[in-house]
Amino acid sequence: KRQGFPEVIYGEGKSIEQIHLIMSKLIEKHGRVMVTRVDKEKGQLLIEAFPLSKYDSVSSILLYGEPKQQFAGEIMVLCAGTSDLFVAEEAAITAEWMGCKVNRLYDVGVAGIDRLLAYRDQITTASVLIVVAGMEGALPSVVGGLVQRPVIAVPTSVGYGAHLQGLTPLLAMLSSCASGMSVVNIDNGFGAAYQATLILKLASEGVNNEITIS
Amino acid sequence: KRQGFPEVIYGEGKSIEQIHLIMSKLIEKHGRVMVTRVDKEKGQLLIEAFPLSKYDSVSSILLYGEPKQQFAGEIMVLCAGTSDLFVAEEAAITAEWMGCKVNRLYDVGVAGIDRLLAYRDQITTASVLIVVAGMEGALPSVVGGLVQRPVIAVPTSVGYGAHLQGLTPLLAMLSSCASGMSVVNIDNGFGAAYQATLILKLASEGVNNEITIS
Amino acid sequence: KRQGFPEVIYGEGKSIEQIHLIMSKLIEKHGRVMVTRVDKEKGQLLIEAFPLSKYDSVSSILLYGEPKQQFAGEIMVLCAGTSDLFVAEEAAITAEWMGCKVNRLYDVGVAGIDRLLAYRDQITTASVLIVVAGMEGALPSVVGGLVQRPVIAVPTSVGYGAHLQGLTPLLAMLSSCASGMSVVNIDNGFGAAYQATLILKLASEGVNNEITIS
Amino acid sequence: KRQGFPEVIYGEGKSIEQIHLIMSKLIEKHGRVMVTRVDKEKGQLLIEAFPLSKYDSVSSILLYGEPKQQFAGEIMVLCAGTSDLFVAEEAAITAEWMGCKVNRLYDVGVAGIDRLLAYRDQITTASVLIVVAGMEGALPSVVGGLVQRPVIAVPTSVGYGAHLQGLTPLLAMLSSCASGMSVVNIDNGFGAAYQATLILKLASEGVNNEITIS
Amino acid sequence: KRQGFPEVIYGEGKSIEQIHLIMSKLIEKHGRVMVTRVDKEKGQLLIEAFPLSKYDSVSSILLYGEPKQQFAGEIMVLCAGTSDLFVAEEAAITAEWMGCKVNRLYDVGVAGIDRLLAYRDQITTASVLIVVAGMEGALPSVVGGLVQRPVIAVPTSVGYGAHLQGLTPLLAMLSSCASGMSVVNIDNGFGAAYQATLILKLASEGVNNEITIS
Amino acid sequence: KRQGFPEVIYGEGKSIEQIHLIMSKLIEKHGRVMVTRVDKEKGQLLIEAFPLSKYDSVSSILLYGEPKQQFAGEIMVLCAGTSDLFVAEEAAITAEWMGCKVNRLYDVGVAGIDRLLAYRDQITTASVLIVVAGMEGALPSVVGGLVQRPVIAVPTSVGYGAHLQGLTPLLAMLSSCASGMSVVNIDNGFGAAYQATLILKLASEGVNNEITIS
Amino acid sequence: KRQGFPEVIYGEGKSIEQIHLIMSKLIEKHGRVMVTRVDKEKGQLLIEAFPLSKYDSVSSILLYGEPKQQFAGEIMVLCAGTSDLFVAEEAAITAEWMGCKVNRLYDVGVAGIDRLLAYRDQITTASVLIVVAGMEGALPSVVGGLVQRPVIAVPTSVGYGAHLQGLTPLLAMLSSCASGMSVVNIDNGFGAAYQATLILKLASEGVNNEITIS
Amino acid sequence: KRQGFPEVIYGEGKSIEQIHLIMSKLIEKHGRVMVTRVDKEKGQLLIEAFPLSKYDSVSSILLYGEPKQQFAGEIMVLCAGTSDLFVAEEAAITAEWMGCKVNRLYDVGVAGIDRLLAYRDQITTASVLIVVAGMEGALPSVVGGLVQRPVIAVPTSVGYGAHLQGLTPLLAMLSSCASGMSVVNIDNGFGAAYQATLILKLASEGVNNEITIS
Ligand SMILES: Nc1ncnc2c1ncn2[C@@H]1O[C@H](COP(=O)(O)O)[C@@H](O)[C@H]1O
Ligand SMILES: Nc1ncnc2c1ncn2[C@@H]1O[C@H](COP(=O)(O)O)[C@@H](O)[C@H]1O
Ligand SMILES: Nc1ncnc2c1ncn2[C@@H]1O[C@H](COP(=O)(O)O)[C@@H](O)[C@H]1O
Ligand SMILES: Nc1ncnc2c1ncn2[C@@H]1O[C@H](COP(=O)(O)O)[C@@H](O)[C@H]1O
Ligand SMILES: [Mg+2]
Ligand SMILES: [Mg+2]
Ligand SMILES: [Mg+2]
Ligand SMILES: [Mg+2]
Ligand SMILES: [Mg+2]
Ligand SMILES: [Mg+2]
Ligand SMILES: [Mg+2]
Ligand SMILES: [Mg+2]
Repeated sequence: KRQGFPEVIYGEGKSIEQIHLIMSKLIEKHGRVMVTRVDKEKGQLLIEAFPLSKYDSVSSILLYGEPKQQFAGEIMVLCAGTSDLFVAEEAAITAEWMGCKVNRLYDVGVAGIDRLLAYRDQITTASVLIVVAGMEGALPSVVGGLVQRPVIAVPTSVGYGAHLQGLTPLLAMLSSCASGMSVVNIDNGFGAAYQATLILKLASEGVNNEITIS
Repeated sequence: KRQGFPEVIYGEGKSIEQIHLIMSKLIEKHGRVMVTRVDKEKGQLLIEAFPLSKYDSVSSILLYGEPKQQFAGEIMVLCAGTSDLFVAEEAAITAEWMGCKVNRLYDVGVAGIDRLLAYRDQITTASVLIVVAGMEGALPSVVGGLVQRPVIAVPTSVGYGAHLQGLTPLLAMLSSCASGMSVVNIDNGFGAAYQATLILKLASEGVNNEITIS
Repeated sequence: KRQGFPEVIYGEGKSIEQIHLIMSKLIEKHGRVMVTRVDKEKGQLLIEAFPLSKYDSVSSILLYGEPKQQFAGEIMVLCAGTSDLFVAEEAAITAEWMGCKVNRLYDVGVAGIDRLLAYRDQITTASVLIVVAGMEGALPSVVGGLVQRPVIAVPTSVGYGAHLQGLTPLLAMLSSCASGMSVVNIDNGFGAAYQATLILKLASEGVNNEITIS
Repeated sequence: KRQGFPEVIYGEGKSIEQIHLIMSKLIEKHGRVMVTRVDKEKGQLLIEAFPLSKYDSVSSILLYGEPKQQFAGEIMVLCAGTSDLFVAEEAAITAEWMGCKVNRLYDVGVAGIDRLLAYRDQITTASVLIVVAGMEGALPSVVGGLVQRPVIAVPTSVGYGAHLQGLTPLLAMLSSCASGMSVVNIDNGFGAAYQATLILKLASEGVNNEITIS
Repeated sequence: KRQGFPEVIYGEGKSIEQIHLIMSKLIEKHGRVMVTRVDKEKGQLLIEAFPLSKYDSVSSILLYGEPKQQFAGEIMVLCAGTSDLFVAEEAAITAEWMGCKVNRLYDVGVAGIDRLLAYRDQITTASVLIVVAGMEGALPSVVGGLVQRPVIAVPTSVGYGAHLQGLTPLLAMLSSCASGMSVVNIDNGFGAAYQATLILKLASEGVNNEITIS
Repeated sequence: KRQGFPEVIYGEGKSIEQIHLIMSKLIEKHGRVMVTRVDKEKGQLLIEAFPLSKYDSVSSILLYGEPKQQFAGEIMVLCAGTSDLFVAEEAAITAEWMGCKVNRLYDVGVAGIDRLLAYRDQITTASVLIVVAGMEGALPSVVGGLVQRPVIAVPTSVGYGAHLQGLTPLLAMLSSCASGMSVVNIDNGFGAAYQATLILKLASEGVNNEITIS
Repeated sequence: KRQGFPEVIYGEGKSIEQIHLIMSKLIEKHGRVMVTRVDKEKGQLLIEAFPLSKYDSVSSILLYGEPKQQFAGEIMVLCAGTSDLFVAEEAAITAEWMGCKVNRLYDVGVAGIDRLLAYRDQITTASVLIVVAGMEGALPSVVGGLVQRPVIAVPTSVGYGAHLQGLTPLLAMLSSCASGMSVVNIDNGFGAAYQATLILKLASEGVNNEITIS
Repeated sequence: KRQGFPEVIYGEGKSIEQIHLIMSKLIEKHGRVMVTRVDKEKGQLLIEAFPLSKYDSVSSILLYGEPKQQFAGEIMVLCAGTSDLFVAEEAAITAEWMGCKVNRLYDVGVAGIDRLLAYRDQITTASVLIVVAGMEGALPSVVGGLVQRPVIAVPTSVGYGAHLQGLTPLLAMLSSCASGMSVVNIDNGFGAAYQATLILKLASEGVNNEITIS
């Protein structure tokens, strides 16, 4: 029976003991586990406890085990610069661990449009695009206009003042004039990667339906 | 070269003359056109001007021409009741016109969970799900927990008081604990259908990448 | 003369000295006292000062003395998982200390509806239900649809981004389409338990009015 | 099997035809029906179509049929003045139609505290209290301090400026320092009456649990 | 020429050095100075530097020198309990230092209306009333209804959740149905005392205008 | 025993019949009455019904009868221009009817500071100042800096966009750096005049307290 | 002595009579006048009264007289499409009437970046740029990245749902990562043009300061 | 080819290592660099690493190298007092480093209008004005009324309660009734200086356009 990807723990607000316990259970059951939102201190302690695990300090993700499957297609993760990396990497590492090929494009802000357009070929051949943006959140609109593939926009909490801890790019992305785009919660790289993976999964498995493309 | 679905007009705030002009151009170029947010009065006048067009008063959509292609798979559109129908039908009719098979499931609110679960088989076999909800916007969370397919949530402006013209279900859907879900703007059935169609399009065309499913 | 439950202290923002003083007075007057929102450090110091008291670190409640009465009926406290426990336990322990029987049901999120429904019998036989939920706050709507008893919904501050420190589930619960539900402040497990207890108290004492049920 | 009170229609945004159709079905099935949020014009047309129905223009409620049962106890509905009457009466008439005895106390604002206190005896003997207030929403706090019975607070949309269409009293009531109070949506007299009725229903039916009051 | 009360420093965000410098200047010029928002640590250091000064840890005010004048009349400062004391005392001490007689009434919340009313005589004979309230901010409305004197309402940041750091009582007070009341910023006991003092000053000096009371 | 100014009706949302009824009662009892927020149409009908009444279409106030007393001192009402006149006149006419002398200064916006300063003498000799401002609400801060008398600030709903229907000047006035200022609700000219009158009343009656000015 | 551009009337909320009166005065004094926010009906009546005036129904501006001066340089006004035209034209016509040369570029949304970039030469040679955008307000960020000239961003009220009547693009523009950009109020094409003109005025007049460019 | 001012680093949230690396690159390429938002501790370490650099603790700016050019004209930076200095200095130092002459006017709040007006001559001869204000943000409106030059308003995060961390002065400035003013993000002294510099740059370079001033 299909069960999705239950082997994920949301580490925020959980103690080392709680995470340790759940990890042990999930490793026993699934042979693998991913924990998001693990700060450096906890990460250090957990890789000591689970020597086979790996900790990534940019995304704050702790990984144990390998992808169980590989999906066809490619997810592109885009962002503007160094400050949004923690979200972009949460998305990228999650997607990889779930079995997707990921192409990172990380220095392409809208205020320097030429750099973004230099990668146009890669952008237009991606299967699904995760576009991470803080500040005013304009990048997804521009990317959405370049492609005919699903775009998942992720606002980030990076900014100040009128940025409202990410509410501003969140609302801006939802108001975007580019079609084919949807939005997840502020800083939710995980959620974007999860949905992107479900899309590749659908495409990989094939749709079990007789209607064929004309 | 494929150019997406450019033959759509956003009718809100456009005069009959403006819509007439753009419709004529798009029909000439593409042989078809869809206009959203057309009120009854304008709809009446436009079907007189374009006798081959059809007007649907629930979704406020005016259609001219047929889908150019048919994509494999099936989009399920769910909502709770009569008040959200205008959004659900904007989604359903848009998706059909873009070439998708649509399965409507329209009387399934979370406060009567048994009715929703009675359709569990249909729900779990859909390729992509568009879940439309006003009030507190809880339906997508429940549906998201039932499936391993992408869920696109659409909050609606139906409610009052603490509902804040749809901001409340919008924020609630973004905060959902169900994975694999993303969100579009309030009442934006069109946007949800557009992205759902892009997903079926991707699955139909196949992903042009060598990695194969294990 | 009946005086309600005056022997409760709201510990937040009070110094050890202030709490100590008020506790002493209330113990002298009522033989018992309950202090909510007591952090671990203060809790430790206070059980040293009052060796007959008990401190619960999940709910941050300090208890001294026993319920003065037992009300008929049963309050069910529901929540989705570990992160909302601190609120659920504030509700449960408060209700118990005020003289109510409490049934806890703590691992039943809406994104896994089957687990919730597995407890349907218990749910429908509860007299009053306190439903605690963070994130999008959808659980009370589902529970409210299952029962014909009063439901008191408690939003929690657990979430991030669009969750707005609990404002989002608060507004969502107020917009709920399930009837028979009312809402208390964010994280206010105490307030929910207090009202639930008043309901059982009313039912236990009987309504002093001649109209009889037909 | 008991099914609650399904015979209620939310009239807002429904056409005469839609209401007529649902009314007919519900009358056939239950012998009675209540429609809320029916404006005067629709009300006039519907009493012509259903001569046995009654329309109340203050609460905008259309009634057909009588209560099926009478619950013991009494609900008191309080409000400050004429402008909140439409909500208070929505609550009062709903509660009566569901089988409750209702005591109205309608001219008792907090800025004239003596008038409120003149009714102290009646207030303290009510089984459940519904307190309706616009403006700053202070009345429920004062009433909540006078009684040891459940108080359900209903903020109204009556006010201007800083009142924010009722958001201000809504948030104020949720922040109240009076215990035993919960809150429903702005102008939701119906919801308050529904929960109050469930409380009297519980008290009337008796709690099926062996624990007895000490 | 009279110049108001320039000898006040707002200590928040100023360093010890900055405060020391400004204090020295003001003492030299006016022979006295008051510093508000001085935390305990700074307070300790400043009374060492200025041995003739006094520091009050409840209001966080540092005083040097005496009132230059005494105004006729009396300001009553009211609040509900211990948590709002820091604001009430900021008001009371400011008013005293500016030359007003102050009557404190500090344990009179609206949820225990009898205690408030026990002081009715004192309340109605006050010249100006400063009413401090956190939570839902209902106290000024009740007090405003009891008197025919100016009421200045001060919302406080004491509360949680729907209280929005004091925005809720602020907006509630502005929406109050009691006449003769105005409002100052959240926690601004100083501002309330300043205006109250200006009122007594006006009354003390007499209005230089020929129109006489009938 | 004096009871304040009970002979005022808030006309907003009341029908002609309701106003007529209350006016009759108040005229019978007090010999006079004032009705605020009366639109032109209602105003016309009411002066026909009460030929001795006067209707002012700028302030939307209906007056019947004369002031019962005259207070010493003078209230100055300031505003920037024609668009805020409806609020300024609500304040001015209310104050006059309650027995105050009013000095109007109506064309003095902060963006033309010289014009304001040209009236400096009048401004500094006023007993109480009501400062009405829409847009960014800066006028009260400037005026407050010119005087040592109480300033009551009234934000108005005149503006657009970032002005948020008056919330912006309301919040700005509350954040003002000028001391001695307090604020009333958006467009609440009546409330400002009421408090200003209470201040003159206090000054006129004299404070019944032995402390004398030094 | 030059006094700026005093000969402008804000027509919103002013009656025909008021506008007529002020126009007459300004024409007498300056020989010219501009009225913004004049709806079609008023516009019709005013050109009848002032046959030498011209009314533009897109911008809702009424003009009388010619520019008094011509400034060197060129203002470019950009927007995405037909729905924002009313704001773009308010800016363009204002700037022209104040004496600036205006270059309009009106069909260049970010979701079709190639079209925008096709005009790159014109964009980079403009002296000042006014960028008008509704929806998510991303256009100014992209334009700001292309130029080294001042960019004035104007959010519009065109959009729905999460767009919050223009607050979303307003906040997004303020959070922009492009340097050299500032923002005016929602729909305030006039304000943007006014500041752009002041910039050209400064450049035209030359800065009266000895420091020279190196 | 002209490249603007790329040699600026936004220091907030960057580690010493990251800043060190980028500084080295920019110094190599441009011979100079400016880093904003560098706290004292980082500043200390960086001047040790780059002995030729200078750190300013008021503005939190680290500078290396000299202006490459000097623009004609003068930027005036105004603010009310000590608490807004950190923003005013971010603006002033940025503008100087970019090649502008800056005139600081720092003790001129609106509540003491005479002090501001004492500098009227200087104010009216500035080429561009940057007006920094916390609290209610009224200063730019007054200054804007005094000059016929571009005013760039900068709201600050200095204030409390209704000030909403700077949102209140931000929205107030956007709603200002003074023409010729635009606004940047809260505390964004850098952005204001950048735009002001672009304006002087335009004026210094001269507009390459044939139209001449009449
Ligand atoms: N970074 C993240 N953001 C949002 N949701 C997450 C994140 N990481 C994990 N989750 C979700 O949280 C679930 C686990 O929650 P828990 O049971 O509290 O550990 C996973 O199944 C995911 O759906
Ligand atoms: N109901 C709708 N909601 C949101 N976007 C829409 C809707 N209908 C059409 N659109 C988008 O608007 C574009 C057309 O806009 P316009 O050029 O203004 O007609 C289409 O290409 C769609 O991307
Ligand atoms: N606690 C306070 N809240 C608000 N304003 C205050 C407070 N204390 C002092 N002030 C005002 O701040 C001014 C002094 O500000 P400053 O020059 O920054 O010390 C005084 O004249 C008062 O008007
Ligand atoms: N204090 C500041 N506030 C806003 N933007 C800034 C500030 N300092 C630098 N910047 C901008 O940030 C850019 C550098 O960002 P980064 O590449 O993250 O260092 C610069 O080119 C400026 O446009
Ligand atoms: Mg696209
Ligand atoms: Mg799922
Ligand atoms: Mg139920
Ligand atoms: Mg009570
Ligand atoms: Mg009063
Ligand atoms: Mg003053
Ligand atoms: Mg640029
Ligand atoms: Mg100016």
